[in-house]
Amino acid sequence: MIAEPLLYERVAAHVAGLIERGALRPGDRVPSVRRLSQQQGVSVATVVQAYLHLEDHGLIEARPQSGHYVRRRGVTPLPEPRAPRTSATASKVSVAGLVAKVYGASRDPHIVPFGAAYPSPDLLPTDRLNATLARIARTSGAVGVSYDPPPGCLALRRQAARRAVEWGCALTPDDLVTTVGASEALCLCLRAVAQAGDTVAIESPAYFGVLQLIESLKIRALEIPSIPGKGIDLDALEEALASHKIKACVVSPTVSNPLGCVMTDEAKERLVEMLARRDVPLIEDDVYGDLYFGTARPRPAKAFDERGLVMLCSSFSKTLAPGYRVGWAAPGRFRDQVEALKFAQSVATPTLPQLAIADFIENGGYEHHLRGLRRKLAAQAQQVSAAIAEHFPAGTRVSRPAGGFVLWVELPPGTSALALHDKALAQAISVAPGPIFSAKTRFSNCIRMSCGYPWSDLLEHAVRTLGRIAREVADRPGPELD
Amino acid sequence: MIAEPLLYERVAAHVAGLIERGALRPGDRVPSVRRLSQQQGVSVATVVQAYLHLEDHGLIEARPQSGHYVRRRGVTPLPEPRAPRTSATASKVSVAGLVAKVYGASRDPHIVPFGAAYPSPDLLPTDRLNATLARIARTSGAVGVSYDPPPGCLALRRQAARRAVEWGCALTPDDLVTTVGASEALCLCLRAVAQAGDTVAIESPAYFGVLQLIESLKIRALEIPSIPGKGIDLDALEEALASHKIKACVVSPTVSNPLGCVMTDEAKERLVEMLARRDVPLIEDDVYGDLYFGTARPRPAKAFDERGLVMLCSSFSKTLAPGYRVGWAAPGRFRDQVEALKFAQSVATPTLPQLAIADFIENGGYEHHLRGLRRKLAAQAQQVSAAIAEHFPAGTRVSRPAGGFVLWVELPPGTSALALHDKALAQAISVAPGPIFSAKTRFSNCIRMSCGYPWSDLLEHAVRTLGRIAREVADRPGPELD
Repeated sequence: MIAEPLLYERVAAHVAGLIERGALRPGDRVPSVRRLSQQQGVSVATVVQAYLHLEDHGLIEARPQSGHYVRRRGVTPLPEPRAPRTSATASKVSVAGLVAKVYGASRDPHIVPFGAAYPSPDLLPTDRLNATLARIARTSGAVGVSYDPPPGCLALRRQAARRAVEWGCALTPDDLVTTVGASEALCLCLRAVAQAGDTVAIESPAYFGVLQLIESLKIRALEIPSIPGKGIDLDALEEALASHKIKACVVSPTVSNPLGCVMTDEAKERLVEMLARRDVPLIEDDVYGDLYFGTARPRPAKAFDERGLVMLCSSFSKTLAPGYRVGWAAPGRFRDQVEALKFAQSVATPTLPQLAIADFIENGGYEHHLRGLRRKLAAQAQQVSAAIAEHFPAGTRVSRPAGGFVLWVELPPGTSALALHDKALAQAISVAPGPIFSAKTRFSNCIRMSCGYPWSDLLEHAVRTLGRIAREVADRPGPELD
Repeated sequence: MIAEPLLYERVAAHVAGLIERGALRPGDRVPSVRRLSQQQGVSVATVVQAYLHLEDHGLIEARPQSGHYVRRRGVTPLPEPRAPRTSATASKVSVAGLVAKVYGASRDPHIVPFGAAYPSPDLLPTDRLNATLARIARTSGAVGVSYDPPPGCLALRRQAARRAVEWGCALTPDDLVTTVGASEALCLCLRAVAQAGDTVAIESPAYFGVLQLIESLKIRALEIPSIPGKGIDLDALEEALASHKIKACVVSPTVSNPLGCVMTDEAKERLVEMLARRDVPLIEDDVYGDLYFGTARPRPAKAFDERGLVMLCSSFSKTLAPGYRVGWAAPGRFRDQVEALKFAQSVATPTLPQLAIADFIENGGYEHHLRGLRRKLAAQAQQVSAAIAEHFPAGTRVSRPAGGFVLWVELPPGTSALALHDKALAQAISVAPGPIFSAKTRFSNCIRMSCGYPWSDLLEHAVRTLGRIAREVADRPGPELD
C-alpha cells in the first residue's frame, strides 16, 4: 500500500514540477516562503519543510538573506586548464607593479572581491576571536606590552607543533619560530638559503606573493609547470635540478595557489627525496593546508623530511584572522639562521595576537570551525565554478581545486586577462590577472578568481558581467604589461 | 621675628642632622615612617611631611615598595668615554652570535635587566593601553581580523604625521608606511637603497640591531666615530664620503644608542646637506627621539630634508609597548619602494595594535605620559650613573646621555667586557658587552647599561657586584669572541 504524500511533499512536488517543465530555470529565484504559503493555502512551516526537502534533493539552494534558487544541475563541468611548458631559463621577476594594482582594488569594500584571496570575515569566528584577544589584553598586564623575542610565543609554538605532529611531522615547539604571517616565514626561510643572483625553482603558475618576494630579494626564478590535479611536474623538476644550479625550491604541496592541487603522499615523498639527494632545501608553503576538501588532513612534505631540509611555513591568515598576522616556520636545520634573521628583520612578532590565537586553538573549537569552513569554501568554489560554466565563453577551462578557495580560469586563447581585469575593475569587480602568477608574465589569457565570499546575487551578477567582458575582449589586443 | 619651626620641620632637621654627621650615609635606608613616628613621638602624617620636605631638598629619595634612602650627593661625575678612531676600511659584520647570547638572558625575569634596552612595563601606561586594545578588539568586528595592507593603518599614519609636523617635518599620512616596529622600518629602508656587497656608513659605537641587520643583508659597514656629547663626527664622515662609495648612512641624530647624543640643529643640517650633495640617502633612526631630556623636542634630521633623501624611522616600542610592534617609516622619495618591500616581506602590519596605539595617542594622554616618562628615565639614568661612580674601579668613564635610558660605560683599559658579561650573567645580572656595538668588535673594555627600570636595592646591589667583577677581570685576558 502506497502512503498518501504528506502536505509538504505535495508542495515540494509542485515546485519540482515547475523546475522540470522549465517554468523555473537554473539560477532563478523560487517563490518566497510567504508567497508560496499564500498561493498554496498551506502554512509557512509546511513551505519551509518543502524547501528543506528540495534542498536535500539538490533541486534548490538557499542563499543567505536572499531566498531560495533553482540549483544549476547538469552544467557540463568545464575541462581543467592546460599545464604550461617548462621554462628553459631562470628569469628576473617583475610583478610588483601589477600586484600593487590588484591589491589597491582589494581595499575598496564596494568592489566585488574575486581578486585578493582571503575568506569573508563572516566565515571566520571573528567576534569570538576578537573577544579572546580582548580578554587576554585586559588581563595580560606587562606580558601584553613586552617583547616575546624569537623563537616567539611558546603557547603558540606548542599548539602549532601539536597540530603538525597530528599530520605526521615530528616537530617540537623548539623547532618553530613564530613570524608575522606565513609571508614573513617564507621571506626568512628564503633569505636563510638563497641570496641575490641565485636561482630558485618555483611552481608555474605560482602565488604572486612568492614571486614578489623573490623579486624583492633579486633572486632568479625557474618556473616548473604545475599539472592541474597533480601539482608540480616532478619529472620537469628533476631535469631542471640536473641542468641548473638551484639553491632552493618553493612549493605548496598541499593545496597550491592558484591551482588548488594536493600532491599525493608518493609525490611528496619523491619531491623531498629528489631535493635531498642534491642537498637543495624545500621551502614548503602550507598556508592552505588546513583547507583540504578531502576526508583527512593531507600530510605535508615535511612529514617525509629525514634530513632537516624541508622548511615548513604556515599561518592562521586563511583560517582565522589575516589581520592578526600570526604565522610560523619550522625551518629544519636552518632554524638558528631563521631565528637570527627574524630578530634582525622585525625583532619579535606582536605578543597579544599570538597569545589570542594560541588560546583559540586550545579552547575555542578551532578544529570544529575548520570543518565548517572547509565545507562552506568547497560549496562556494563549486557555485562560482558552475556560474563560470554557465556565463563564460565557450572554450573556457577551470581548475577543480582539492582545497582552498581560488579557481584558476583559462579563457579562450587570445583573450587578454589584463584587458578583462581593467574593464572588470571599471565595473567594480576585481580579479587577479594571470600574468602576476608568472616570472615570465605568462598566462596572459588566465585569471584567478577567489571564492572566499558566500554565494549571492551580487556574485552571480558579477560572474555574468565577467563572462560578457571576456567575450568583449576576446581576440582584441590587451594592454601592454607595465 | 623668626617663626618657630613647624613640627615636621623639626623632624626633618633631625634626619638631616643624622645625614650631615655621617650617621646615615649615601645609599643608606632612613628609618621607616612608622618607626620614626614612634621614635619621635609624632604622627605618621608628620613624618610623611618631613620626608617629602627632605625629598624636595634633595637629601633623600623614595624608592617604590622599599622606603626612603639617603641620596648620593657630591659624587664627582665620571669623565665621558673617549671617541673611537675612524675606520680606514669597511667591514663585514658578525655580531649575531653574541647578540643572541645577550638577548637570551633578557628573557629570564630573574636576571637584573641592565642588558636589553626596554623600559620597565611599570613606567608605561600598560593597563590603559591594553584596555584600549581590548575595547577596540571587542567592537572591531571584521576590521580587526582583516588585512590593513601597506601603507597601513590610516588612523596611525595620521597621528604619526601630525606629531612629526610638530617637530618641523612637512609630512602627511600619505608619506608614511607602517611597519612591525622601527626595526622593520630600518630593514625596509636599508633594503630599498642598498644591497649585498654595498657599503653603508654607521655611527661607532652603533646600536647592535643595526649591525645585525647590516650583517643579515651582507652589506659592509664603515664605522664613523661618534663623539660623546655631540654625535657622529661630521668631519670624519665627510672624508669617508670622499674616499668610499657609500650607498647610505644610518644615524640616530636625536638620542643615539648607546651614547645618548643629541646632535644640534646645525649639525643635523650639515649632515643632511653633506649627504644630499652626494645623493646619499640618510636612514634616520628616531626611535628614542621622544625621550630627550631637554626642554623641547629636538627636530629630526628629516626636518632639514629638501630632497626626499632622509628616510625617517620610528616606533612606539620605547615609549608605549615593545610587544605591540608598531612602527613607521617616512621614506621620502623611496616611499613606493618601501611600500612594495613591506608587502613582499610581511604583507601587512597587524591591524588591532595599530588601531590601539592610534587611539591612545589621540585620546589617551600620550604627551602627558611622555613628560612623566622622560622625567623618570632621566632620574634613573642619573641614579645608575651615580652608583657606577661609587662602585666601579677608578678610571671608569660613563656617558652623559641627553635622552633615552642607556649608559655607555668605558672600563679601565684592559678590562674585558666579555669576561665581565659572562661573570655577571653567572650572578644573574645582564649587561650588553661593548663588542656587539661595532662591526670590528671594538670597545672590548666597554659595556652598555640599560636604565629602563626604577632604581631599587636590587639594582644598587647589582651595580656594586658589577664593580667588584670589573676589578676581578681587570687586566686578565677575556674570552675569545665567538
